[in-house]
Amino acid sequence: MRKFHPLAVEAMRQGKRIYHLNIGQPDISTPQAFFDAIRESQPRVLEYAASAGVPELLAAVQGYYGRLGVSLQEQDILITNGGSEALMMLMLSILDEGDEIIVPEPFYPNYTTFIHAAGGVACPVPTTPEEGYRYADREKFESRINERTRAILLTTPGNPTGVALTREEMAMFKDLAKEHNLYLICDEVYREFAYETDELLTMLSFEDAADHVVIVDSVSKRFSACGARVGALVSRNRTLMDECMKFCQGRLSVATLDQIGAAALYSVDPGYFAATKAEYKRRRDTVVRKLREIPGVICEEPKGAFYLMAALPVDDADKFQTFLLEEFADNQETVMFAPGESFYATPGKGKNEIRIAYILKQEDLERAMDLLALGIEAYNKR
Amino acid sequence: MRKFHPLAVEAMRQGKRIYHLNIGQPDISTPQAFFDAIRESQPRVLEYAASAGVPELLAAVQGYYGRLGVSLQEQDILITNGGSEALMMLMLSILDEGDEIIVPEPFYPNYTTFIHAAGGVACPVPTTPEEGYRYADREKFESRINERTRAILLTTPGNPTGVALTREEMAMFKDLAKEHNLYLICDEVYREFAYETDELLTMLSFEDAADHVVIVDSVSKRFSACGARVGALVSRNRTLMDECMKFCQGRLSVATLDQIGAAALYSVDPGYFAATKAEYKRRRDTVVRKLREIPGVICEEPKGAFYLMAALPVDDADKFQTFLLEEFADNQETVMFAPGESFYATPGKGKNEIRIAYILKQEDLERAMDLLALGIEAYNKR
Repeated sequence: MRKFHPLAVEAMRQGKRIYHLNIGQPDISTPQAFFDAIRESQPRVLEYAASAGVPELLAAVQGYYGRLGVSLQEQDILITNGGSEALMMLMLSILDEGDEIIVPEPFYPNYTTFIHAAGGVACPVPTTPEEGYRYADREKFESRINERTRAILLTTPGNPTGVALTREEMAMFKDLAKEHNLYLICDEVYREFAYETDELLTMLSFEDAADHVVIVDSVSKRFSACGARVGALVSRNRTLMDECMKFCQGRLSVATLDQIGAAALYSVDPGYFAATKAEYKRRRDTVVRKLREIPGVICEEPKGAFYLMAALPVDDADKFQTFLLEEFADNQETVMFAPGESFYATPGKGKNEIRIAYILKQEDLERAMDLLALGIEAYNKR
Repeated sequence: MRKFHPLAVEAMRQGKRIYHLNIGQPDISTPQAFFDAIRESQPRVLEYAASAGVPELLAAVQGYYGRLGVSLQEQDILITNGGSEALMMLMLSILDEGDEIIVPEPFYPNYTTFIHAAGGVACPVPTTPEEGYRYADREKFESRINERTRAILLTTPGNPTGVALTREEMAMFKDLAKEHNLYLICDEVYREFAYETDELLTMLSFEDAADHVVIVDSVSKRFSACGARVGALVSRNRTLMDECMKFCQGRLSVATLDQIGAAALYSVDPGYFAATKAEYKRRRDTVVRKLREIPGVICEEPKGAFYLMAALPVDDADKFQTFLLEEFADNQETVMFAPGESFYATPGKGKNEIRIAYILKQEDLERAMDLLALGIEAYNKR
């Protein structure tokens, strides 16, 4: 995705306005509680925090899961540098050279970075735009399990597709992981943004799979606090947690003040989530409605997170993005998205697909989608 | 070291006061500039920072090295989650399964965590308490170089020994790394705490070894800001930096507010360093003087950082520490240090050695050393 940055800089230099649908940085305000807690805590010496996390944040995460009906011990939680570090530690803990992880495709590209760093291999389960990228198909996953398979890695609600598993689908994956004695790594950082249910779902609710389920969590999207870099690894598998704790001790601790701020976030009014979710849902509806008005676009309604993927009537989304930045403009405006290929491990897949992050306000989204429609028309007329 | 924690908790429960010489957490105040900058920056949305670091911090680090006579480009610097993450990224970037890193022993135990995570092997160059743990011996290092050797890893001024290389010794290692085409990784996080010189030394000053030298840096000790978790990886080797940048992108960014605070730290008055260094030097002198009054202790004067290692007239420092916590007390007080074995890769070495962190104020240090002397006497009389 980064290869378009210089083109975007040049386009802006020429006076073009760019609507950014290419990044997952929410525009929702970070709750004031975060900043207040940091201001109030000002210590004389900014000391290392405990490697597993500061007590008030561990308690806050424990309390949050308690409200979801999931009873955790403090030792089931490790605070990490965002969900990213939780994933990195996990991969380094569970993978030996050549070990495999099954992951539905398209998926978050940084998973590959972490899996490769640990010497592992991502084994993708393909999906299609026509089927709305839904992947909850037991046979497809089962057919990929072999003696090198260590884990199934899911993101629900999902980045980049917005696919959200139902409770029944989650139970199916839980059973599969148990039967084949695999880790079930579930990246649930978008938990609050599921539009078909008011229930907050988590794999942790299946207590019969306690040794298999590992949750990657974060305050980044939940509280629009990406820059805090505060995440968590949650699992009841003691052996795994002890292994991950060694990495926590190796890097000493997570930023002390950000943890104190993050702890305060967990006490924000539930109204915050309701408002944020309603806002994202409105935007999703807008984007889907506008996309479907464009001839030749394939787009199923995503059920969660703040992303969707769509297939466009263009030969190559990379070339199309270059065209939008270098040649196209409508009233001095253009649009950016994330071309689809980088979300696929299978070479050649996703070539005419794009990921859209609906993180702009309503009227900007409408205009961005109009620019996309005009751009497609212009691109195919060249 | 952590195994003594439960014993310490129990000792405190029984009303004992413990003098902690076992941890590297400075007691010097963090400059107010850090907290002020964070308070002033309060953004509406706490966004991800750029993966390489926020511009103001990159500029601050660049300016700091400029004042040391080292001219860097912005792309020679990557901001990391403390020096720890810089080390982790480095190991993952330069080591394949079975590759070796030569490191003088005793060394910082977490190096092993990072080297092992990358599948590498630490190849120790042994030193002794009698020679003050000095390791700048070309032949000893050269004899350990083989076709699997990728790097030499040095800490100067050093944790745990306080050994600080002279400019001439640094030049020797630089030549060695060049001749054998190795990375020369230099952990210089204690740079400001060298007691034999007022010059701030860095391997980066050898421009003829630009492709070999890699610096691990941090604000943790320099500004007594361990809990900020802000470090840096600095190198002019473009290929290596590109590789490390991939890991930076994978974990997205370092905490935004801490970076803003850290940038402000770089503008503190130079008087801050002079006062801090003078304070640590006084403490070092106290600890060395008191240690040398204890019969049978072997302790050369350390030249930097805020640690020293010493050999004690006891059979086993682990057992001695247990004794100090469980059985010993003088006027309801006792003392903790870090037993030496964990700083050695060679099995059985360091058994009667300890590391002392002189991070307590003068009178507490005096008392702590008296407790150590009394403890040794009592332990050997059992």
